[in-house]
Amino acid sequence: MKGLWLENQQLSFREDIPNPQQGENEALVKVKRAGVCNTDLELIRGYYPYQGVLGHEFVGVVAEGPQELQGKRVVGEINAACGECSLCRRGMPTHCENRTVLGILNHNGAFADYVALPVKNLHPVPDHVSTDAATFVEPLAAALEIQEQVKMTENERVLLVGDGKLGQLVAQTIALTGCDLFVVGRHEEKLARLRDRGIKTGFVEDIPWRSFDLAVECTGNPDGFDIARRSLRPRGTLVLKSTYANRLTIDASSLVVDEITLMGSRCGPFSKALDLLEQDKVDVTSLIQTRYPLDQAIKAIGHAQQRGVLKVLLDMDA
Amino acid sequence: MKGLWLENQQLSFREDIPNPQQGENEALVKVKRAGVCNTDLELIRGYYPYQGVLGHEFVGVVAEGPQELQGKRVVGEINAACGECSLCRRGMPTHCENRTVLGILNHNGAFADYVALPVKNLHPVPDHVSTDAATFVEPLAAALEIQEQVKMTENERVLLVGDGKLGQLVAQTIALTGCDLFVVGRHEEKLARLRDRGIKTGFVEDIPWRSFDLAVECTGNPDGFDIARRSLRPRGTLVLKSTYANRLTIDASSLVVDEITLMGSRCGPFSKALDLLEQDKVDVTSLIQTRYPLDQAIKAIGHAQQRGVLKVLLDMDA
Repeated sequence: MKGLWLENQQLSFREDIPNPQQGENEALVKVKRAGVCNTDLELIRGYYPYQGVLGHEFVGVVAEGPQELQGKRVVGEINAACGECSLCRRGMPTHCENRTVLGILNHNGAFADYVALPVKNLHPVPDHVSTDAATFVEPLAAALEIQEQVKMTENERVLLVGDGKLGQLVAQTIALTGCDLFVVGRHEEKLARLRDRGIKTGFVEDIPWRSFDLAVECTGNPDGFDIARRSLRPRGTLVLKSTYANRLTIDASSLVVDEITLMGSRCGPFSKALDLLEQDKVDVTSLIQTRYPLDQAIKAIGHAQQRGVLKVLLDMDA
Repeated sequence: MKGLWLENQQLSFREDIPNPQQGENEALVKVKRAGVCNTDLELIRGYYPYQGVLGHEFVGVVAEGPQELQGKRVVGEINAACGECSLCRRGMPTHCENRTVLGILNHNGAFADYVALPVKNLHPVPDHVSTDAATFVEPLAAALEIQEQVKMTENERVLLVGDGKLGQLVAQTIALTGCDLFVVGRHEEKLARLRDRGIKTGFVEDIPWRSFDLAVECTGNPDGFDIARRSLRPRGTLVLKSTYANRLTIDASSLVVDEITLMGSRCGPFSKALDLLEQDKVDVTSLIQTRYPLDQAIKAIGHAQQRGVLKVLLDMDA
């Protein structure tokens, strides 16, 4: 099959990739649409030594699998868990010690004709949700993970740092909680998108320091971390939503003195993300910057690497 | 009055320090006993530019103050709060933005003849609790702060990194929760003290990595942090109990991938610490390494700075 292959930080578009082996309890899915995520770009920059087909945000149609899913549009949770280790048994399959992760860890990804995933990872896409919109289920679920970890009550003052692809989704999901949200970013046109949805926005110089109960860091760079940290009141919580290509140097003593909580946040609940899309509670398709056919995947990545670009899709129907 | 003065990281023993000004709602306390804490040593090393009398762990006798406290032995909470700022009003006086902190921030400390503190900061010492034991109330309260922040249930696997002065107190307080505690340190004789109390101990090489639910870092050095981090299972919590003289470099991406929580922890509940001492639930006096009269305070600090030394006291009755 065709697909975008990463090896030693080098991309190649290959036509000789073997079709995925469909393991027991797995389905073979024909990919219809896939989204480029910053994690893909970080993998290319060497954040983690992955070799294989890239891509983990996708919508596909079940080609081989259980009768009731046959021919259905599906999205797929990206962590393929063993179901037997202590973490799986404790209800943390996304942290399974034996997991493979679609397009990230020992599991060929979705920038290809086909992917294979455990049947239990698949979620049918409701008819009302377009294929384009469903491509955002994975990052939308990741955005919702924050609410699985920390309570956001009304009147709670929340700062979101970052107006990029992920920040746009995180902002929309946090706004739904009714908390007092303020989003800071560097791009007036991206902040304007959020203001159009009634969300307060500004630049770094507008931040009232040491006043927020919760800060969410969605930039993945040390400046973003510093801003989030300095925005917090004592006993505030800082959620780290992005990975960092390099190690981060922090003032640990100030975390102790101010009794700050830092919290890493990764994959989230697909079903809740699908619910939000089905109920039209978030707008995702306006975040699509452009789309490329699969055989222009390298060009698509190049486009996604440009500053300020929102979501780049690979469209296998194109 | 006499006292140990810190200025530009230089210590001097002075006899010309003015007696503390007793503000409104404050008491003047004649110091009987004071303990040397690692924070004192860090202040001398320049962790924070403090100028004034050092010392914040103490027991004294009220010399001037409300009738009912007159002549009573007391211990004192070290944060003198304004009572009016937003943090005070939200029930976080230890984080008051206008606070002074005894022997740490704009408030002359306890390595002196007298200290002044707000009356509301003072706690009478029960008759049953010795003056030596009561000198440990402040660090014991700091140890108990961990339990104010995170739940420790039975069967929870907790790793404590550090067998020093603070580690000894933290270990004893955590052990009282009934959780599954393991303490690692570098000093066999200090670990043996804990084993004598039925606490499991070991060295770094004995740690089953990625298995603990909670890790408490009580060393204040980057090695201790790394050990605590690596010991945690995904979604585990790392409590930072010590300040760090330098900035700390961390792998922030691994915090995101494993959804780890870091939590800074500082001052704790004095009344609960006094309760533990009154009920003989912890042993603190065996941690006293030695004692010096006030006018040998510089010698006392020198002793406390030696490797492996436990609690050094200043004994104003000596």
